Amino acid sequence: MTPGTRRAGDMPPEEFRRLAHEAADWMADYLGGVGSLPVLAQVQPGDVKRRLPAGPPERGEDPELILADFRDIVIPGITHWNHPAFFGYFSISGSGPGILGEMLAAALNVNAMVWRSSPAATELEEVATDWLRQLVGLPAGFEGIINDTASSSVLYALAAAREVAYPEVHRNGLFGLPRGRVYASEHAHSSIEKGALTLGFGQEGFRTIPTDDAFRMRPDALRAALEEDRAAGIRPVAVVATTGTTSTTSVDPVDAIGPITREFGAWLHVDAAYGGPTAIVPELRPLLAGWEEADSVVVNPHKWLFTPVDCSVLYCRRPQDLVRAFSIVPEYLRSADTGKARDLMDYGVALGRRFRSLKLWFVLRYFGRDGIVANLREHVRLARAFAGWVEATEGWELAAPVPYAVVCFRFAPAGIGTEQADALNQRILDRVNAGGEAFLTHTRLRGRVVLRLAVGNVKTTEAHVARAWELLREAGRAEL
Amino acid sequence: MTPGTRRAGDMPPEEFRRLAHEAADWMADYLGGVGSLPVLAQVQPGDVKRRLPAGPPERGEDPELILADFRDIVIPGITHWNHPAFFGYFSISGSGPGILGEMLAAALNVNAMVWRSSPAATELEEVATDWLRQLVGLPAGFEGIINDTASSSVLYALAAAREVAYPEVHRNGLFGLPRGRVYASEHAHSSIEKGALTLGFGQEGFRTIPTDDAFRMRPDALRAALEEDRAAGIRPVAVVATTGTTSTTSVDPVDAIGPITREFGAWLHVDAAYGGPTAIVPELRPLLAGWEEADSVVVNPHKWLFTPVDCSVLYCRRPQDLVRAFSIVPEYLRSADTGKARDLMDYGVALGRRFRSLKLWFVLRYFGRDGIVANLREHVRLARAFAGWVEATEGWELAAPVPYAVVCFRFAPAGIGTEQADALNQRILDRVNAGGEAFLTHTRLRGRVVLRLAVGNVKTTEAHVARAWELLREAGRAEL
Repeated sequence: MTPGTRRAGDMPPEEFRRLAHEAADWMADYLGGVGSLPVLAQVQPGDVKRRLPAGPPERGEDPELILADFRDIVIPGITHWNHPAFFGYFSISGSGPGILGEMLAAALNVNAMVWRSSPAATELEEVATDWLRQLVGLPAGFEGIINDTASSSVLYALAAAREVAYPEVHRNGLFGLPRGRVYASEHAHSSIEKGALTLGFGQEGFRTIPTDDAFRMRPDALRAALEEDRAAGIRPVAVVATTGTTSTTSVDPVDAIGPITREFGAWLHVDAAYGGPTAIVPELRPLLAGWEEADSVVVNPHKWLFTPVDCSVLYCRRPQDLVRAFSIVPEYLRSADTGKARDLMDYGVALGRRFRSLKLWFVLRYFGRDGIVANLREHVRLARAFAGWVEATEGWELAAPVPYAVVCFRFAPAGIGTEQADALNQRILDRVNAGGEAFLTHTRLRGRVVLRLAVGNVKTTEAHVARAWELLREAGRAEL
Repeated sequence: MTPGTRRAGDMPPEEFRRLAHEAADWMADYLGGVGSLPVLAQVQPGDVKRRLPAGPPERGEDPELILADFRDIVIPGITHWNHPAFFGYFSISGSGPGILGEMLAAALNVNAMVWRSSPAATELEEVATDWLRQLVGLPAGFEGIINDTASSSVLYALAAAREVAYPEVHRNGLFGLPRGRVYASEHAHSSIEKGALTLGFGQEGFRTIPTDDAFRMRPDALRAALEEDRAAGIRPVAVVATTGTTSTTSVDPVDAIGPITREFGAWLHVDAAYGGPTAIVPELRPLLAGWEEADSVVVNPHKWLFTPVDCSVLYCRRPQDLVRAFSIVPEYLRSADTGKARDLMDYGVALGRRFRSLKLWFVLRYFGRDGIVANLREHVRLARAFAGWVEATEGWELAAPVPYAVVCFRFAPAGIGTEQADALNQRILDRVNAGGEAFLTHTRLRGRVVLRLAVGNVKTTEAHVARAWELLREAGRAEL
């Protein structure tokens, strides 16, 4: 028997107050001091699990004990995305105002499935996504909806595309319909193929388009694929252009892809999950030229806009097609307001919805356009500075252009074969990550192992990037 | 021009500390005092939006101003799910420990897509979902995964079912395959039909099964439907049994449905989103008999287990089928750990994942088995007390049995026609809700408008239920 307390009702408000203050202090200490923790969790698979009881407690436990275990068992198993030298994946960070918004949303715990179940959550979502739309310069016809991730957003966009390509699908499903396809570059995110699989297109229903030497979708290859498929009786359902691919942040030429997509009658979805926020920065916006002609666009504030996960905004110029794909209003959700206001449940799979717009609204207000521009511009500057150091150093080379704030590079000193260089770069990566001072990830480009340094954290300074570069060179010398 | 500050970097840690303490106090005050606010937001569509600027701020704003607008503009537009007299929908509530867990998770802001991107988040999810599995008494073969909502969970379960029913689907999609169907009771949740639509089955690929006089799926009708469809060449993909339907919380007889489902080779999914947690209460567990034979089961801690939205646990006895439906591992997510530990991204659509297990772990530890049982038992007791008052009162009647903590009832005084009674009950509902002291929703059962009182909030006491009953009777007299 676990000793403890049998608790009926909720935690008493004064106990909650005390613990919330304790948590607030922990959070402030953590955010202020995370730079001194190892970035990558220094644990092996199973280490965390082994320190936890195999079964649940029979009686309620002292919350101080829970917080102590959080600090002593959970934290050592955390890879710190907040660390200013976390340069892995997309190096996404929340920010103070975003965390405050999330705290308050957790306390409110409303479910904005229909307007009346929480009017402010529905309307604030409309306002915050429209503010973001204005910031990134998309035309007024785009209506925004917040999903958990871009994976869900692209699934919903492709569902709308399927609805348009196959008017019969809502009633009869895909059985017996002519084969259809979704197109994206070979560097597009895995969620697009996952979306196509989920929707019943199969892997055959997803075709990758070759890229040019800057890893951008080749419009001529897209046209050739569409023509070939049309001749084979395959229906083009959607083309997904990516502005900021996951490996290299390459930017597909949306302005050239759009007219081809139209010509073949397909839906144009722009995956700007990563690149979208950069449209707020005047000198970066031209890279996105043509996205305003898309049917749908996804922009992830949780990726490069200082908003804690999860917050992915799907903009759609044809929201009625989205609603048509998903809307089913059962009686228990009907009310006098049905039809008078937006019911967010109609725009996707999930019925329950957290109050995600609150943190986005906090972030947009706290930073304002100027603050967002300043942060994004600094991240791009840091990445380009790093790229410059790589280029200037004997034996090191850039592996891709740097349109945004991710640098793909490689140590390939003279006299080392390509296979050997792959293994060498892997060892460099492992050595740097094991040190705990910086964290990077890798990718493969044209078959070669390539290191990636992604800047995107609001706490990252030039000193962190410079130190990472020092560690990489040291590791290069040590592993050579 | 908005006056303000251009902010580079994050909010300074000491500013965050001050504001987090301010937020903590607001949260404690709110949770302690929510009972004195109007339950249903007393606003009209557009009221909140009108009070917010049409465009985003150019420069960063004072965070005190943001918090003030939160209190003055957002809060009046909130329908308070925390209010102890919120009896609408499923009356779900978070709890102090759940909110603390969410606060800390927001600060950590990790993304547990693969093990190494946050080992503790992956392993704590394994531990917390296994503790919950033990609490509800599901066998050890069930592996849990946390999704945002049961809508996502059922989509993933049905995707796995589709993978099993059609081995060719992964490669070729549904084109050209024999028609298939998903079955659920006519009282099942709309997300099941949505899931079938998403997966490409169409509305024709979803068949509802009639219910008995207690709104439970009729096994004989299920068998008849499966036989009829088999004769017509339609492939049975999945049967969804619901334990706790949305309108009445009726419980489908899983023990009778399971063997029929097996016999026809279909996947059995049990939607125990609402009813699942009740298996922790010994005297309620028998209602779920047979669920241990399911292929997948969904249990929502955010529904009736004091965990803030979103937290839906999908238990699967065939996790490899889930993985098969979704797993695509691109190079940029591969690492030395790939395959050695669980990569949560493989079990569904979303790649990004919040650290949702933290709040669930806090809740399970704070309340313990005893505390959970005490709370659930009390909610059931309150609902049954209310049902007793309805039954004992002239002119009022129960409209459905009360297996859990939702009461469906109706005012139908002698001499009033059924249509008139529908309108009367609608007026009663509107009158009570407009008063702001209690909030209920309605449903339709066999065509009739029925009022619903759902108990599920950890703050609700008998006094709140009694007051709601008083208000309903007053409204009944006033509207008659």
